[in-house]
Amino acid sequence: MKLQSNLPIDGARLWADLMALAEITDPGKPYTRRSFSALFLEGREWLKHRFEEAGLAVRLDAGGNMIGRMEGSDPSAGAIVMGSHSDTVPAGGRFDGIAGVLTALEVLRSLRDAGKTLRHAIEVVDFLAEEPSEHGLSCIGSRALAGVLSSEMLDYRDGVGERLGDAIDRVGGNVARLQTARRQDIAAYFELHIEQGVVLESRGIDLGIVTGIVGIARVEMSFEGRADHAGTTPMDLRRDAGVAAAQAIAVASEQAKLYAAAGRGHFVATTGVVELFPNASNVVPGAARVIVDIRGEDHALVHDFIAELDDRTKLIARACRVERKSWNLLSDAKPSGFDPRLREILTQSAGDLGFSTLAMASGAGHDAAFIARFAPSAMVFVPCRDGRSHTPEEWAEPDAIAAGAATIYEAVLRFDAAAAEMEKD
Amino acid sequence: MKLQSNLPIDGARLWADLMALAEITDPGKPYTRRSFSALFLEGREWLKHRFEEAGLAVRLDAGGNMIGRMEGSDPSAGAIVMGSHSDTVPAGGRFDGIAGVLTALEVLRSLRDAGKTLRHAIEVVDFLAEEPSEHGLSCIGSRALAGVLSSEMLDYRDGVGERLGDAIDRVGGNVARLQTARRQDIAAYFELHIEQGVVLESRGIDLGIVTGIVGIARVEMSFEGRADHAGTTPMDLRRDAGVAAAQAIAVASEQAKLYAAAGRGHFVATTGVVELFPNASNVVPGAARVIVDIRGEDHALVHDFIAELDDRTKLIARACRVERKSWNLLSDAKPSGFDPRLREILTQSAGDLGFSTLAMASGAGHDAAFIARFAPSAMVFVPCRDGRSHTPEEWAEPDAIAAGAATIYEAVLRFDAAAAEMEKD
Repeated sequence: MKLQSNLPIDGARLWADLMALAEITDPGKPYTRRSFSALFLEGREWLKHRFEEAGLAVRLDAGGNMIGRMEGSDPSAGAIVMGSHSDTVPAGGRFDGIAGVLTALEVLRSLRDAGKTLRHAIEVVDFLAEEPSEHGLSCIGSRALAGVLSSEMLDYRDGVGERLGDAIDRVGGNVARLQTARRQDIAAYFELHIEQGVVLESRGIDLGIVTGIVGIARVEMSFEGRADHAGTTPMDLRRDAGVAAAQAIAVASEQAKLYAAAGRGHFVATTGVVELFPNASNVVPGAARVIVDIRGEDHALVHDFIAELDDRTKLIARACRVERKSWNLLSDAKPSGFDPRLREILTQSAGDLGFSTLAMASGAGHDAAFIARFAPSAMVFVPCRDGRSHTPEEWAEPDAIAAGAATIYEAVLRFDAAAAEMEKD
Repeated sequence: MKLQSNLPIDGARLWADLMALAEITDPGKPYTRRSFSALFLEGREWLKHRFEEAGLAVRLDAGGNMIGRMEGSDPSAGAIVMGSHSDTVPAGGRFDGIAGVLTALEVLRSLRDAGKTLRHAIEVVDFLAEEPSEHGLSCIGSRALAGVLSSEMLDYRDGVGERLGDAIDRVGGNVARLQTARRQDIAAYFELHIEQGVVLESRGIDLGIVTGIVGIARVEMSFEGRADHAGTTPMDLRRDAGVAAAQAIAVASEQAKLYAAAGRGHFVATTGVVELFPNASNVVPGAARVIVDIRGEDHALVHDFIAELDDRTKLIARACRVERKSWNLLSDAKPSGFDPRLREILTQSAGDLGFSTLAMASGAGHDAAFIARFAPSAMVFVPCRDGRSHTPEEWAEPDAIAAGAATIYEAVLRFDAAAAEMEKD
């Protein structure tokens, strides 16, 4: 492992932590540390020791988030918070979430090692259950901080019937006092994450400075035709729901390419789910169902896309002599914009360290999307190999993570100093 | 029930038999009488009694086919054979196959009632397991007559591990003497079947005189791209196997419409099976598999279609930046042409009885396809409601079946008389 040695953080120490935490996994299904599981708690115990070794005061908040804190010189200045999550999807990777938590820890350690005294308190947070848990909910801990973890959500049950609320209590939260997890004192939030895409790698750029998290809408549509004999039904008498679904998928893809080229920010649309009924080789498909996932920085563009797809799939259905039986907007989350001042501080910090940056939207959701609802927030993306994520092959270079960690280190110092400047003015 | 009363067969008696045999079904899943099952054997027991009541000599051949026979005046003339099958698909109908067996019985009864003495022996055959059995093979009994039931096939096992050969023995066949099921003495074979399509009904035509059974080819193709994050992967960097599959389906359908309009007989192509991997809404499909079923009277046209689809799907793969990973010709059965003389006799017989006819290909496979390999064969199609088949809603009008039965009755007499004429010449 070759690492830049002129950085203000210790990239080798950060990398060693990453590899050590990765060892705490279901051995038959690396890398798996599902939220609320025994392995997750074992990982947290390891993290807790590392937090304590760094001299941090460690606590669990009511939402089940594990927080390590170093006090600042000015109790009224609030906290600079950094974090991400240590839970994984099944058979996931060693970086998604974890790199953000351990980077935050490394920044704190390096500040302490350098003898820096900051006005703000500094915290590292391991947010609870960022990945969809077995209860079917994601970003559970960051939702708690934002005050948007509803009673209805706390009643979600997992496969063995445990309530989410009970699961949070079981791992050390306190649902009865959930309101205490809400924070008014966060002056700035920074999160490092692997990109989970190929933009930085394909363009040879060191770091992404994230402009915001895209809005995500999902549309489920179904077509109903008639399940006729594949041999005896002439082409012109068919009502083939499968052909209608295929045309809808092709049209959604073509349309998405045009919208992506519209110059209105990151825009993608994906048909990831297709089901035919009866799905037998000798039967004309009588029904078909598809789900289209649409994401964009510009929410109006997402809505334009949905309206156009609605019109075009109605025409497709008519041309195929089938019925567009259903059209359901399964979800429609607005984009979250990150704080322009924090983005600027990150961009300058990276530049001064010699790293190239790209302002880019995040196509994936992150804890930062919930923190951004109530506090200035920003994210740094590091390139990952082939854009792979949620798979054991997920990989980021040690240098890339070190670059991101060093950038956040510098940004924390700048933010702290700038806040002091502003106070003096 | 209103039935034409001027026909040479008893339509009411035939209809009563159809409704009676339909009662022998899995009561929770009408209409089900799976080959090799206890219900199938119960249905055969009922049929055997009906055959015997009609004065027929009943036997099982080595292939497990049940044969009822009335001897002719000239032992050297061979046999006129009529038949179809009494087994069903799960939750099938009351007519598919059954109408052909009971029509054959009604023709025999009516010949006897009318005191007709024929030169040929006349037989009704209930072929074993025309529908795909639990062993994964169709047309088992008619294959035995044609001598194409291979040792490999006899080793196919069903879900509980029973060998097909053992199952044939269990229902009364004799696999050790399978060669004895082969027939050299069939002078003519007639089969009535519901159309299983909408051509006759939509054109208001009484009967189809089947020109032959289409060739059936099946192509399985798969595309391999990359399973990327649906949010983070820009449109122009995707390798979406689902979009490639969708374009292939759309192209196959468009191409099939052109081929069907080429004036080279019945031609259809169907994509009935589509599978995406991982089939998750937030993942760009990394792989996709489709099966295209292609059927045509003109085998060269089927092959032209496959070659063109091969070329076009390669181009689609390239345009979608995915690999067309596999291209397998799963099956490729040649068309079977029916005997022109028997078709002519059927057409004349129908016309003399006042029925309109249409020369048409069968898009579905039937026992007659195997009998046609070694003996002059022909089929009569009767219209069925909405083309529905293999479903409890399968329906044919009593008048329609009576018309088909009367046509075969006349055709049997004509064939027998014409054979005598020819001998005299």
